[in-house]
Amino acid sequence: MAKDKLVREITAMEDDFAQWYTDVVVKAGLIGYTSVKGCMAYKPAGYALWENIQKELDRRFKETGVENVYMPVLIPESLLQKEKDHVEGFAPEVAWVTKGGLNDLTEPMCIRPTSETLFCDFYQKEIQSYRDLPKVYNQWCNVLRWEKETRPFLRSREFLWQEGHTAHATAEESHERTIQMLNLYADFCEEFLAIPVIKGQKTEKEKFAGAEATFTIEALMHDGKALQSGTSHDFGDGFAKAYGIQYTDRDNQLKYVYQTSWGMTTRLIGAVIMVHGDNKGLVLPPRLAPVQIMVVPIAQHKEGVLDAAHGVLDRLSARFRTKIDETDNKPGWKFAETEMRGIPLRVELGPKDIENGEAVLVRRDTGEKIAVPLDSIEDRAGEILESMQKEMLERARAHRDSHTYVAANYEEFADTITNKPGFIKAMWCGDQACEDKLKEEFAATSRCMPFEQEHLSDVCVCCGRPAKKMVYWGKAY
Amino acid sequence: MAKDKLVREITAMEDDFAQWYTDVVVKAGLIGYTSVKGCMAYKPAGYALWENIQKELDRRFKETGVENVYMPVLIPESLLQKEKDHVEGFAPEVAWVTKGGLNDLTEPMCIRPTSETLFCDFYQKEIQSYRDLPKVYNQWCNVLRWEKETRPFLRSREFLWQEGHTAHATAEESHERTIQMLNLYADFCEEFLAIPVIKGQKTEKEKFAGAEATFTIEALMHDGKALQSGTSHDFGDGFAKAYGIQYTDRDNQLKYVYQTSWGMTTRLIGAVIMVHGDNKGLVLPPRLAPVQIMVVPIAQHKEGVLDAAHGVLDRLSARFRTKIDETDNKPGWKFAETEMRGIPLRVELGPKDIENGEAVLVRRDTGEKIAVPLDSIEDRAGEILESMQKEMLERARAHRDSHTYVAANYEEFADTITNKPGFIKAMWCGDQACEDKLKEEFAATSRCMPFEQEHLSDVCVCCGRPAKKMVYWGKAY
Repeated sequence: MAKDKLVREITAMEDDFAQWYTDVVVKAGLIGYTSVKGCMAYKPAGYALWENIQKELDRRFKETGVENVYMPVLIPESLLQKEKDHVEGFAPEVAWVTKGGLNDLTEPMCIRPTSETLFCDFYQKEIQSYRDLPKVYNQWCNVLRWEKETRPFLRSREFLWQEGHTAHATAEESHERTIQMLNLYADFCEEFLAIPVIKGQKTEKEKFAGAEATFTIEALMHDGKALQSGTSHDFGDGFAKAYGIQYTDRDNQLKYVYQTSWGMTTRLIGAVIMVHGDNKGLVLPPRLAPVQIMVVPIAQHKEGVLDAAHGVLDRLSARFRTKIDETDNKPGWKFAETEMRGIPLRVELGPKDIENGEAVLVRRDTGEKIAVPLDSIEDRAGEILESMQKEMLERARAHRDSHTYVAANYEEFADTITNKPGFIKAMWCGDQACEDKLKEEFAATSRCMPFEQEHLSDVCVCCGRPAKKMVYWGKAY
Repeated sequence: MAKDKLVREITAMEDDFAQWYTDVVVKAGLIGYTSVKGCMAYKPAGYALWENIQKELDRRFKETGVENVYMPVLIPESLLQKEKDHVEGFAPEVAWVTKGGLNDLTEPMCIRPTSETLFCDFYQKEIQSYRDLPKVYNQWCNVLRWEKETRPFLRSREFLWQEGHTAHATAEESHERTIQMLNLYADFCEEFLAIPVIKGQKTEKEKFAGAEATFTIEALMHDGKALQSGTSHDFGDGFAKAYGIQYTDRDNQLKYVYQTSWGMTTRLIGAVIMVHGDNKGLVLPPRLAPVQIMVVPIAQHKEGVLDAAHGVLDRLSARFRTKIDETDNKPGWKFAETEMRGIPLRVELGPKDIENGEAVLVRRDTGEKIAVPLDSIEDRAGEILESMQKEMLERARAHRDSHTYVAANYEEFADTITNKPGFIKAMWCGDQACEDKLKEEFAATSRCMPFEQEHLSDVCVCCGRPAKKMVYWGKAY
């Protein structure tokens, strides 16, 4: 039977999570492969997710006074090299343009891996006086990093993102904006993507190349691996000094600006798949879903069925992103297809339902079937979608909490990281040597020093010396 | 006085149109210069224009069934070379990536100058059956062409655009889609940008590299030069044959697909500036304008003025994109500033106006001042903006028509092209030698063979042999 065949094509996540993931991104029609190594083609169902993320994030940005701009895709080598840590961090992973038209370039240029250098160059020219501050700019664009191992959405050579770059008069203001955007990211993940996150600060080892401090939101995937889902960097006046970005203040003194940057990428789509997906395919939170409701007529050749189905479609379309599947495929195939594509709600409508003045609503996340009177179908669909959005977040939070462990000492850490995929909360002395050791021994990285600190013990989980911070550890994508 | 000073900074367009243009793009805050040769920084006021163009075009696309996707930014050299005419057209003007990370690439890749090759590669993998057709895909992205001479918006190495790429079962269908998109472009220009266009077909000499036929919309700028504002290409099955894109039809035969592509770019912003702008700066058509109304309180230190202005702001904001200028600058400065930035309507509100229960509305295009009762200000503002949108189109059309000339023979052509900037309608034999000659002699190019043909004479304006087509000629950006 068609339905079984389609479902059979996905590897079960318990058997091979990586293969399950690949199956879902392909079978749900999110991406296609290309002849360009390490790059992917976003198909309509995949790109529509990015469009919805973009629309919602952009709206939230603009509410906080962000303005969109656009800087060049190329960075001259000399510009990249002005901030020492930054160039060391990025130079090994950029692509170099050495020829333009028919001529060799006198100076190579790289394709932007991130645009701090370009914004600094721009701000250096634009900012003269305190009246020019703050600048709260953002751009939506593509960036390129020459990754060796790539996976759709999670790590690809080219990816799409937004990068905010701001300039402020004081350190307080830049710090405030850094935290404001981190909070915005966290709220967005929870409210829109139904993904709960841990907010915290990166360690020195893990912070962004050139930043004074990096803040992060960390999410837990279904397989117990962590995914860094958004970062916000406070640069202090480090870049300003490297690029000479100064302004004349009210007191007529020449001062350096303080800067931030913050970004979210298409890897969020990978997070949605790995947090909510199941063995039938994608499961999309209703607010994100490009198609929220699919109407599936049953026995559509019978008189009145298609008419009734279109009546329902029209009414639902006034409030929800709704489609109808009136292809000549079997209902079982259509059901499997809406499930594979993660459409939150399916409306089944056949001759009997019509006779009873009802339709059957099927929730994608729980599979629950709910018979609903046709005359209140919009309200009931709205209620169900709202519940689903809320419960998906709750389930994801419950999963994360039940996969968050405490390790009081090295043995517990070793046991947990080896046998229990998830976050590990453990104390840390603050010494990078311990981070290095845990990474080498267990491929575990410090995810963040969470804002909500707990006192688990007095000593570092690795070296036993006095502890300074509680850290979330984990294996990460 | 501040106002005079600001205005003095723009060169008059009669004195030096090119300098006037540069002054406007800089003083209106549309662009900033960067350290990246031939590339520009889009500042908030410039990028907001592109965002509005994008939103409206995207809406119109989707109404015709277009779906958005995203293909890689890099094209391997071997992929670029599959279609002979296409590679000849583009190879001389692409940027080459030869190094990724720390290693030289075994195969160079270029940054996309356009993405036919990537879409063909993708369609070749995706399309198997007639059930997979049509594909009506579009992407919004950046592209790069290694131009030698660049001008903001009109010609820059990197620009932003949309490129639609479709695949169809039949030649009829691909031709229909080509014309459908050209009509959509023309309607968009007239209805949204208030720019009238001539629709027609490009000659063999001017058509897109690899196309069977290229269609274009041509607009006339204030200085009498033409601007190609959007193109739509019918590829027939040429690319399909080069890239092996075949499908199994209902009759079980293997057939090649028929393709189209069509694009509009950020140069539209240049068109808006050069069609509508004046010596006070930018003039934006109301539908495009990011800020449609600016409220300017007069004597704002006086009691009640700012309160009243905010009352007006709140009411107008419910229906229009409205801002208030309550900086401590002088009113004259504020007026000049709203004029420079092209804001369609200014609301002046001072103590006397408030006493009279009125406000003064000032149209950006005509400078007309209209006293309006406060209690009907939304309706009156709406009417004025509607009239302005309509009259801007009419004025642009009148300007174009009064700068469109007929040349019956070589002498008339020579006289007109030399002394009267504008379009020249003239008959053509169809021989490329004549196009080459007119280009060499007068730097005049064939803009298009318009759909609306007229019979002006029996002979070619250049060689005197029998004429085949009426052609629009002109000097172009």
